[in-house]
Amino acid sequence: MRALSFLSLFVLSSTTALAAPKNVIYMIGDGMGPAYLTAYRYYQHSNEHGTNASRQAVANTIFDDLLTGMASTYPDDDTLVTDSAAGATALATGVKSFNGAISVNRQHIPIGTMMQLAKQMGKANGIVASSQVNHATPAAFVSHNVSRRNLNAIADMYFDYRINGKPVADVILGGGTDYFVREDRNLITEFKSEGYQYADSWQQLDILTRKPAIALLDNVGLPAALNTKQPRQLATLTEKALQLLSPAEKGFVLMVEGSQIDWCGHDNDIACAMAEMHDFAQAIAVAKAYVDANPDTLLVITADHETGGMSLGADGKYLWLPDVIQNVTATGRKIADELNAASSDEAALSRWLELTKIKLTTEQQQQLLAQRGKEQKDLREVAVALIAKYSYTGWTTGGHTAADVPLMAYGKNSADFHGFMDNTAIAKQLLRYISTSPQ
Amino acid sequence: MRALSFLSLFVLSSTTALAAPKNVIYMIGDGMGPAYLTAYRYYQHSNEHGTNASRQAVANTIFDDLLTGMASTYPDDDTLVTDSAAGATALATGVKSFNGAISVNRQHIPIGTMMQLAKQMGKANGIVASSQVNHATPAAFVSHNVSRRNLNAIADMYFDYRINGKPVADVILGGGTDYFVREDRNLITEFKSEGYQYADSWQQLDILTRKPAIALLDNVGLPAALNTKQPRQLATLTEKALQLLSPAEKGFVLMVEGSQIDWCGHDNDIACAMAEMHDFAQAIAVAKAYVDANPDTLLVITADHETGGMSLGADGKYLWLPDVIQNVTATGRKIADELNAASSDEAALSRWLELTKIKLTTEQQQQLLAQRGKEQKDLREVAVALIAKYSYTGWTTGGHTAADVPLMAYGKNSADFHGFMDNTAIAKQLLRYISTSPQ
Ligand SMILES: [Zn+2]
Ligand SMILES: [Zn+2]
Repeated sequence: MRALSFLSLFVLSSTTALAAPKNVIYMIGDGMGPAYLTAYRYYQHSNEHGTNASRQAVANTIFDDLLTGMASTYPDDDTLVTDSAAGATALATGVKSFNGAISVNRQHIPIGTMMQLAKQMGKANGIVASSQVNHATPAAFVSHNVSRRNLNAIADMYFDYRINGKPVADVILGGGTDYFVREDRNLITEFKSEGYQYADSWQQLDILTRKPAIALLDNVGLPAALNTKQPRQLATLTEKALQLLSPAEKGFVLMVEGSQIDWCGHDNDIACAMAEMHDFAQAIAVAKAYVDANPDTLLVITADHETGGMSLGADGKYLWLPDVIQNVTATGRKIADELNAASSDEAALSRWLELTKIKLTTEQQQQLLAQRGKEQKDLREVAVALIAKYSYTGWTTGGHTAADVPLMAYGKNSADFHGFMDNTAIAKQLLRYISTSPQ
Repeated sequence: MRALSFLSLFVLSSTTALAAPKNVIYMIGDGMGPAYLTAYRYYQHSNEHGTNASRQAVANTIFDDLLTGMASTYPDDDTLVTDSAAGATALATGVKSFNGAISVNRQHIPIGTMMQLAKQMGKANGIVASSQVNHATPAAFVSHNVSRRNLNAIADMYFDYRINGKPVADVILGGGTDYFVREDRNLITEFKSEGYQYADSWQQLDILTRKPAIALLDNVGLPAALNTKQPRQLATLTEKALQLLSPAEKGFVLMVEGSQIDWCGHDNDIACAMAEMHDFAQAIAVAKAYVDANPDTLLVITADHETGGMSLGADGKYLWLPDVIQNVTATGRKIADELNAASSDEAALSRWLELTKIKLTTEQQQQLLAQRGKEQKDLREVAVALIAKYSYTGWTTGGHTAADVPLMAYGKNSADFHGFMDNTAIAKQLLRYISTSPQ
């Protein structure tokens, strides 16, 4: 299982040895296509300046402040449209693969990952995700599998795959208890026996005081940012990870994924997506502040692909209304659940108005009510279509698209991440740094 | 009609005087949102490597090589989605205005434009467009009007509006005879009497040997790049403009618009759009070569907005097929005209196959034939929807969207155009340079 690609990297590293940053923070907005950044800017503007704000001075977001270029995302299988597994494999190993692949190549041979290299170089490393921690993106940084669907096998590998006798990741924060505490195997007990501290709730997060450490805060993914009362979910985990990784003699590599931007995109749920963008932006602010305090750190932010074919403006109308989105206080899934649970059609419509502030026509009310009592999906699809209609948000797919994604960089060596890059070039440059011992 | 905004620019200019480039080439891809660049890259790759090409090594396009950042495009009227007039006003004056405005502000007061400033500073200037030369984008560089629809009044102003006793633009190349040679006024005769050389066909272009000069090569816009036999339309005009402007003691400012990328976007016609992108790319190659030979020149490329909400991938399918698009050899408009002109349904279907190479199902054939004999638009919409379906291209609107657009820069001072910028910031920086006398 030793990774081939390491060899060439070690050779390459000699030329860049002097310039390498000590620490790398690598943040991935899953599904965060370019329109998500535009949308978030105007959504924030609308939040800060109210419905009647003049558009004359729209403030930059943290994404705008850090933007340096764009990246291509195509996989190695002639589809041009990547999934999160192939996208994360490219971003974690510098090698393109097929959709579904978790850091294995076309011939199913494992490819050395960024965190495995970090471990080998004696650097600390960690992964933070708002999904289950063994979901495609974090999985590709730590483990190998021919299919992202093998979630239990991937979780097993988090413990079983060893470098210098230890599990790869020193810090693992996110959701996913269902995959780590199973009837057939309790990986948490095993991690504890290996010296990992463990927390299973937000309240318990303080008991993590040093690495190695693992926190699984939900059965699968964390709650949607729009639905939860827990503020700054990803920012809190990013702070904790940096605190645990920081005293690292040879530096550290931290991957932070805003996992659920993509999930909202799949649902074509713009209010859900904007809340996840905000959660991710807050985590970026934490990382940026860390770089300001620790200038030997590089922060690189990108996405694995675009989700949904989202557009600001639709159906011929020259208009996009973030105010409508600001007023929506639950995801389409939660709206559907609550409307299904309502005691009557009247109660359901009243709950709709509370959760969205959107006054429907009689015909639209009937559309919505017609889906009550069916699958969550049926009601959800009508709900998010209405929110899209009233905000003039367009969507072309429930899947991914091939759009180039934003590239952002800040801190030491950030000048190496400017202009247009392929996703593998981003990873190769980071792997070069990581293969270099800090000065 | 003297422009207020000039004053502050002259003040600002003193600080940047030493760094200003002598010549500025400013290229605008109308409607060229970020997905257009992604699409063009894979479309080119498919052209160069055939249907079975591995995706492992997709070559950069000229857009990729020059990419430096992204730009926001929102107008000054709370819609967030700009039209080409407000977009061009921002790009030509540094001031946002309302949709429809041609370099006038919210109070309908004219705002000084880039070409007017160039003329005032004794610099040569020119406009090149694949639309009529008085269409919204070029119009905002030269003239003022409360509405882009007043095409005759705008054409009049190209001659009547004077700076130092002369019309603003020294070189005017594109389409638009209908607006310049009218029953009520022959502006070409007037331009000739003012010393302008004039060409009215591609064959005659050689008779333009010095500025001032004007060429109107079609009644309205130039032929669509996909339909015409004239190769390199915009590249040819760009070469000619650079040749005419080049011996300029105080430098020059040239604006080149790839006008019809937008028109294809409005039609949701991906084959049309890719051909216009190629035509624009060839013009960029001419400009880049000019910068290489004349290093005191700055090349800046951007778009006014995105058109169509275009996505690569649609309807849940993880796939985009540029090969399908490469096989389409006519725009939807031309396909519709030819199918309408065919002698029989059978002849129409045979022509469809010749022009698109797409084998339709019987049901799809019936959909297409059902629109024969109606308006061009009816048949065109079915035709482009079928091309979109077979290539997995998504569209959300026949209008514009608020997506940020690509920013590219090359040559002297190109470092000033990196990262995220508002469209007005691009213009303000260029206006600062132009307000500076060359060293
Ligand atoms: Zn996804
Ligand atoms: Zn347009």
